[in-house]
Amino acid sequence: MTYRVLIDANDEKGLVYKVSSLFFKYDLNILSNSEFVDKESNKFFMRSVVDGAIDKEELTNALLEVLPKNTAVRVIEPKKKNIILMATKEMHALGDILVRHEEGELDANILAVISNYNLLEPFVSKFNIPYITISHEGLERGEHESKIIEVINGFEDVDYIILAKYMRILTPRFVEAFEEKIINIHHSFLPAFIGANPYKQAYDRGVKIIGATAHFVNNNLDEGPIIAQDVIDVNHAHNWKDMQRNGRDVEKVVLSRALKLALEDRIFVYANRTVIF
Amino acid sequence: MTYRVLIDANDEKGLVYKVSSLFFKYDLNILSNSEFVDKESNKFFMRSVVDGAIDKEELTNALLEVLPKNTAVRVIEPKKKNIILMATKEMHALGDILVRHEEGELDANILAVISNYNLLEPFVSKFNIPYITISHEGLERGEHESKIIEVINGFEDVDYIILAKYMRILTPRFVEAFEEKIINIHHSFLPAFIGANPYKQAYDRGVKIIGATAHFVNNNLDEGPIIAQDVIDVNHAHNWKDMQRNGRDVEKVVLSRALKLALEDRIFVYANRTVIF
Amino acid sequence: MTYRVLIDANDEKGLVYKVSSLFFKYDLNILSNSEFVDKESNKFFMRSVVDGAIDKEELTNALLEVLPKNTAVRVIEPKKKNIILMATKEMHALGDILVRHEEGELDANILAVISNYNLLEPFVSKFNIPYITISHEGLERGEHESKIIEVINGFEDVDYIILAKYMRILTPRFVEAFEEKIINIHHSFLPAFIGANPYKQAYDRGVKIIGATAHFVNNNLDEGPIIAQDVIDVNHAHNWKDMQRNGRDVEKVVLSRALKLALEDRIFVYANRTVIF
Amino acid sequence: MTYRVLIDANDEKGLVYKVSSLFFKYDLNILSNSEFVDKESNKFFMRSVVDGAIDKEELTNALLEVLPKNTAVRVIEPKKKNIILMATKEMHALGDILVRHEEGELDANILAVISNYNLLEPFVSKFNIPYITISHEGLERGEHESKIIEVINGFEDVDYIILAKYMRILTPRFVEAFEEKIINIHHSFLPAFIGANPYKQAYDRGVKIIGATAHFVNNNLDEGPIIAQDVIDVNHAHNWKDMQRNGRDVEKVVLSRALKLALEDRIFVYANRTVIF
Repeated sequence: MTYRVLIDANDEKGLVYKVSSLFFKYDLNILSNSEFVDKESNKFFMRSVVDGAIDKEELTNALLEVLPKNTAVRVIEPKKKNIILMATKEMHALGDILVRHEEGELDANILAVISNYNLLEPFVSKFNIPYITISHEGLERGEHESKIIEVINGFEDVDYIILAKYMRILTPRFVEAFEEKIINIHHSFLPAFIGANPYKQAYDRGVKIIGATAHFVNNNLDEGPIIAQDVIDVNHAHNWKDMQRNGRDVEKVVLSRALKLALEDRIFVYANRTVIF
Repeated sequence: MTYRVLIDANDEKGLVYKVSSLFFKYDLNILSNSEFVDKESNKFFMRSVVDGAIDKEELTNALLEVLPKNTAVRVIEPKKKNIILMATKEMHALGDILVRHEEGELDANILAVISNYNLLEPFVSKFNIPYITISHEGLERGEHESKIIEVINGFEDVDYIILAKYMRILTPRFVEAFEEKIINIHHSFLPAFIGANPYKQAYDRGVKIIGATAHFVNNNLDEGPIIAQDVIDVNHAHNWKDMQRNGRDVEKVVLSRALKLALEDRIFVYANRTVIF
Repeated sequence: MTYRVLIDANDEKGLVYKVSSLFFKYDLNILSNSEFVDKESNKFFMRSVVDGAIDKEELTNALLEVLPKNTAVRVIEPKKKNIILMATKEMHALGDILVRHEEGELDANILAVISNYNLLEPFVSKFNIPYITISHEGLERGEHESKIIEVINGFEDVDYIILAKYMRILTPRFVEAFEEKIINIHHSFLPAFIGANPYKQAYDRGVKIIGATAHFVNNNLDEGPIIAQDVIDVNHAHNWKDMQRNGRDVEKVVLSRALKLALEDRIFVYANRTVIF
Repeated sequence: MTYRVLIDANDEKGLVYKVSSLFFKYDLNILSNSEFVDKESNKFFMRSVVDGAIDKEELTNALLEVLPKNTAVRVIEPKKKNIILMATKEMHALGDILVRHEEGELDANILAVISNYNLLEPFVSKFNIPYITISHEGLERGEHESKIIEVINGFEDVDYIILAKYMRILTPRFVEAFEEKIINIHHSFLPAFIGANPYKQAYDRGVKIIGATAHFVNNNLDEGPIIAQDVIDVNHAHNWKDMQRNGRDVEKVVLSRALKLALEDRIFVYANRTVIF
């Protein structure tokens, strides 16, 4: 049996020794191993992939026993994770995930695509993925989200909710309901532009680079822990619609990259940051 | 004689025709030619490199005659431009320019390096460039800048003032005294961080990319027209000092790139943007 | 009426003047204009987008009349181009084009997908694009290609044939039948690796970057004029299958970028090079 | 005392346990830790930074005792390494290292610059670094190298020889004399071009990207284990001299990056590859 072991502890001397001696005791073979210590916050992170004959609970308990109090231990058996995609009207980020899924590149079951419009239904249906339209029209934000939460909770074991260009702001209630489970993609600029139509503002400033950031969603809009980022060059000949169009190419690549990191259990979140192995 | 011809006009039908027919009439050979029309602002930009036997004034006047009112025409004879470098304590951006200058890569005379500290004097002196320390200590910002302005104005025909990590904020008076002549480099992030120690803030957010922006300085601090930008990857293992150190590699490359564009007269500035040919 | 005007001539004085005076005479508005002179080969390239009331033939003839002998003039009315996609077993490059097409991002009709296997048929059928399997089994290369050529020639006005990971070598006969119409994508490395399994070889050398090159296909395998290139970082922890997987992300982005340049008539080919406006 | 511990062993179960238990036994604090197992070659690599009261020999012996036969253990006390720079006529790569050294960014003593020309002497002298001209004129390759080897061997404890655009081919004798100590930078292209003037060839092919590769030098010219690589974009408007000039910016950045990795003892070499922590 192969397991991914993720350990998140307050740093102290001997942690690697304690973990590795336990792996040795249980005759587990280490296939890969990554560690990181954040000295400022005195936090220790470790991700090991091990192989051997022990069950998940036993390994978890054995680790908890030797490690300091308040250590978080996750022993994960690699298998397809359950994800829900949310989208609004754009196809690029959603389509990139659906094609990767179709090609067998993603270790995931796509349970459904949820949208506030029915626009993408014909497209999503091609892939035999359930498409659920939950219109926001005539509803207060809270009511609308309640309906979405209800639909999501109707599925069992949802691991991640991927906002593949879902263009509505989420309330704290929604975010808290799925803590560290919601991954969003948004355009990014240097410098940043706040307010309406950032692409128009970026054009007006004549930026030479535009980017995209994939991040976990927390209560501060577009401010959660960053998972992946990338950029492309633009120039004066790109009007803001060109920038937006080109920006899509970065958005989809960065979101898919973040999704894969999540599916492979490579991300630790702490404070407002990520450690990625 | 070779000239760079830069034209900045309100767009109307026939501009390229008018310019190129005049080049043809004066038997000028077009070595290169770039045009751009910004439809939103209805502005036309053209940069031609031409070769032939006509003098600068004659060509300028001939162009002004055929082109619409309020057209700006610059006919520039390629030659070394006069630049002044300003720095504070860091060597990397300054050093990159000095080495390029030494290697003969820059079409520029470096008139002087001005700094508010004498720290870099031994380094700059190696290159036989005058180093002028103008300490800000005990002076109000206005007084300090007056002294710098006086020194700069003591030189003839200063084309550009390059802020190679000059770490003091410039007042509107200073900026206006050298409009579209001051080029600055500053670190950039996606998202942007405002306030003290942006590298520390960027680290706290766990950014995966850091960048640098070279721009003309106008009255809005760090908000002038962007000339060049670039980024490098960082990860959780880089603490904020690592980020700062790695950021220097981008800063120096981007500033030198912007300087070269300026020395080759490739930059148009309008509104708060640049067109770069 | 809007036209794209592409001119490819031996360079001589007055070409821009001649073209722009003709545009002016016919009251055509220049929406954008790009020129390039390759001094070494003395070649002049110009791409203009003009708007006005003249028909295609008239404009072509008028241009040919004023321009030097042997000038190639193309006056193109922007409209959807007809493309055929060819693939073998992989979905990523094909899927990227199909999703962009579905989203309306490509100015193209996809006439068909041709493959030497039927593997991708279920996927392509989702998009209501004809899928034509032409198996190579039991056929000599020449026979197999004859069948493909026949199928392609059964369509009218095929503008481009896009090899979206079509993994068979084309013979000179095939290539000559569709000169400057076939665009291929292939992985690229620094340094290059010749022979079987280049990803394995790249891994063995420990490359830190892998790339992709989109190019027109000519008789020298993988050696045609380059249209677009890009790279991504890899490291020692990526085995050659990881590299191959990550390489796909670059391949699909670069192929789609090249396709768009072709659809917008932005590419000139000469000698073994491209000029791209 | 802080040490960098580098272990290179045949992989077997329990290696991390054995090493970390020994660190624990000697009360050493692990400041950072990286491991990598190359499954194909069954090789295990580990780099730890530890802090504690034990001397170098004792720690080395203790490690060798618990680890399998044929394990290579290096316990390194971080201190300035001794490097010799070799150059020919170009200043950019050399200058970048000299400025970083001057700024105190490099953990290195530059013992000397050796060149086959005296051209760069005035430049290097500014930095108070000995400049040794060893002309190759009138000498056979072997004689010339003997003189260089003699000079190098006149210095004690040379850790690295950095070829900062040293443009002469080294013989196997020279390379073997300084195994895994010589780092070179050379331009790289996708695809690669063999023979005279690769920039000219790259121009002729119309490449859109040019790169640089820093690598250890072994007997196969330009074929040693790769340490670092990077690229920049070029286009049809860059002639081959422009490409060469722009290429310098990548060369210097990549060489300095490789040098820093070497100075920090982050590189393992095996087979013809590197593992870089």
